[in-house]
Amino acid sequence: MKGFIGVDWGGTSLKIGLLDSKFSLKLKRTIPTKEIARKEDFLSVFPKAIFSLIKEAGINNEDIKGLGIGAPGVIDVRKGYIYLLPNVKGWENVPLKRLLEKRLPFNVYIDNDANLYALAESKLGAGKNFNNLLCLTLGTGVGGGLILNKKLHRAQNLSNCEAGHICVELEGRTCSCGAKGCIETFVGNKYLVNFYLENTQNRFTPIVRRLMKSEKELTPQILYKAALLGDKLSQRVFGRLANALGVYIAGIVNLLGLEAVIIGGGVVGAWRLISEDIKKIVKKYTMPPFNRKVKVLKAKLRKNAGILGAGILAKEGMGV
Amino acid sequence: MKGFIGVDWGGTSLKIGLLDSKFSLKLKRTIPTKEIARKEDFLSVFPKAIFSLIKEAGINNEDIKGLGIGAPGVIDVRKGYIYLLPNVKGWENVPLKRLLEKRLPFNVYIDNDANLYALAESKLGAGKNFNNLLCLTLGTGVGGGLILNKKLHRAQNLSNCEAGHICVELEGRTCSCGAKGCIETFVGNKYLVNFYLENTQNRFTPIVRRLMKSEKELTPQILYKAALLGDKLSQRVFGRLANALGVYIAGIVNLLGLEAVIIGGGVVGAWRLISEDIKKIVKKYTMPPFNRKVKVLKAKLRKNAGILGAGILAKEGMGV
Repeated sequence: MKGFIGVDWGGTSLKIGLLDSKFSLKLKRTIPTKEIARKEDFLSVFPKAIFSLIKEAGINNEDIKGLGIGAPGVIDVRKGYIYLLPNVKGWENVPLKRLLEKRLPFNVYIDNDANLYALAESKLGAGKNFNNLLCLTLGTGVGGGLILNKKLHRAQNLSNCEAGHICVELEGRTCSCGAKGCIETFVGNKYLVNFYLENTQNRFTPIVRRLMKSEKELTPQILYKAALLGDKLSQRVFGRLANALGVYIAGIVNLLGLEAVIIGGGVVGAWRLISEDIKKIVKKYTMPPFNRKVKVLKAKLRKNAGILGAGILAKEGMGV
Repeated sequence: MKGFIGVDWGGTSLKIGLLDSKFSLKLKRTIPTKEIARKEDFLSVFPKAIFSLIKEAGINNEDIKGLGIGAPGVIDVRKGYIYLLPNVKGWENVPLKRLLEKRLPFNVYIDNDANLYALAESKLGAGKNFNNLLCLTLGTGVGGGLILNKKLHRAQNLSNCEAGHICVELEGRTCSCGAKGCIETFVGNKYLVNFYLENTQNRFTPIVRRLMKSEKELTPQILYKAALLGDKLSQRVFGRLANALGVYIAGIVNLLGLEAVIIGGGVVGAWRLISEDIKKIVKKYTMPPFNRKVKVLKAKLRKNAGILGAGILAKEGMGV
C-alpha cells in the first residue's frame, strides 16, 4: 500500500491517520494534546508516533508520499511556518515544516484546521459538486475555509480565514476579539448560553431546570433539547442564531458569488431547529442571479474530516 | 499603432477609448447613453462609432487586437452574455459578445463595470503592489470588484460582486434590495441625505441653509462642505459612514486576508473627512497578522478608469 498521513491537531487530542491513495482510513492513532503542547515534546514524540504507525501498518517509509497537518492557528502554508496558535503558548514563529522534514523522510505540509476541514468537505463531502463554497465550523468559535474556483483560498500564502469576525450588528455584544456584533457573538457556544442567562437573570426556565437535574453546566445542547420540548426562550436562542447566520451567509454569497455554504461543528446538532430558517433567509437576501442556485448544506464528514483534509493536503501540496 | 478599444457604459454616456498597447489613451468618443438604450439602436450605432473612431485614428481594423466593454449589470463573462442591466430595460439575456462579433472584426469581451474599475486600479492605479484587494466605488450605490491572488474573482464565470448588500446592522434601515442594514444604507448618496433630513425633520441646519441658497437639491457634496464648516449633524453623517465602512472593511479583510482596500467614486470627495477614521477602525478590527499590513487607499485613476479596465480586459480576455 502507498498512501498519505493526515494529522488533525485538536484541542484535546492529536489524531494521526494513515490513508491509502483513495483517502480510505487504514490506521489511526491518538496522542493527548497536552503531551505535545511543548515544542520540544512535539518534536520528539510526534516523529516516533509516525514511525511506529508505519511499522504497525507493515509498510515502508518510502510508501508514504507525504504528511499533512491541520493546526489550530495562523500558518504560512508555503513555508510550513506557524505564526501563532492562539490557544497554545510557545508556538510563535515555529518553522514546523523544516523541523519535521529533518526528522521524517517525506514532505510535510501544514495548514489551518478549518481550511483543511473545508478542503475535505469540498473534495469528499457535501461540497463535491460546487466550485465556490464557504465551509463553516460552528462551535466554541467560528472556523471558516473558502474554496474559490475549486481551490482553497489563501491570501499572501497564509492560512487564515477569520470568518467569525465579521460584524452583523454595529452596536452588538462585545466579541472575544474586542469588536462588537461579530457573527461569533450570535453563534458561538458561550454566547448562546449567555443570551439565555441574560434573559432569565441567571435563573432557569422550567423545562431547562428539569433538564439540568442530571447536568453540571448549561450548554447549547441542553438549550436545544429544551427548545424541542417547547421552551420559548431556548427557541429564541436558536431563532436569533438562524436569523443572524442567514443574513451573514447572504452577505458573503453576495460578495463572492458562492454556490454553497456548508455548516459543520457542534451547532449541526441543532440542524432540525435552524436549517429551514437559515435557508429561507439566505434565499431572501441573496441577490439575483445567485439566489436561484445557492445551497446551504450540513457537513457530511464526521470525526475524521480533519485527518482527511490533511491527507488531501499531503497529496496535493500547495496545489489544492 | 496597434492597440485596444475600451468601452465604459455609464448612466449618462457610453465612452469609447482607443488605447495603445501600453494603455495610453489615444482617442476618445462619447455617445449619450439614451441613444443606445434600446438594443436595436445599440447594435446599429455602436459598430459605426467604432469604425469611425478607427478611421479617425488613421489605423486599420487589423490594428485593433480586441475590444472590452464594462457594462452596469450581471454578465456571464465567458459567454459575453448580459443577464440583466438593473437600470436599463430590455437587456435581459442578451448574447452581446456574439451579436457584436458578427458586426466587428475583432474579439469582444464584456464584464461588469465595477469589476473593470477594480482591474484598472489593480494594474495601473493604487493597487499595483498588492495581490489581494477589494476595490469599492461608492456613490449612488456600492460597486465592488475583488482581486484575489492577482486575478479578478469571478465565481461561476459571472461578473457580479454585490459588495453593497452585506449587512452590518441586523435591524438597520431598509435597503433598496429589501434587506435591512446593508452597508449601502450607510454610504449610498441618498441614505446620507436621508439620515441628515430625518434628524432635522426635513429642515436645514444654519450652515446647510446658507449653502443651499445657490442649490436645488441637498447632496452629499453640500453636507461635506457643511461638515468642513463645522455643521455638527453633517459631521455625524460622515462619522457614521466612516464607522460603518471601517467595520465592514475589517470583516472582509478578516474573511479574505486582503492586503488593501481601494475606495473610489463620489465619496472620495470627502476623503479628508473620513479617511483617518476608516483607517483607524480597519486597523483596530482586523485580526492578526493581517492588521499589520492592510492598507486603505484612495483610488488613483479618475474619469478614464472604466475605459482602461475595459482595455485591460480586451488585451487579456478571461486571463485577468
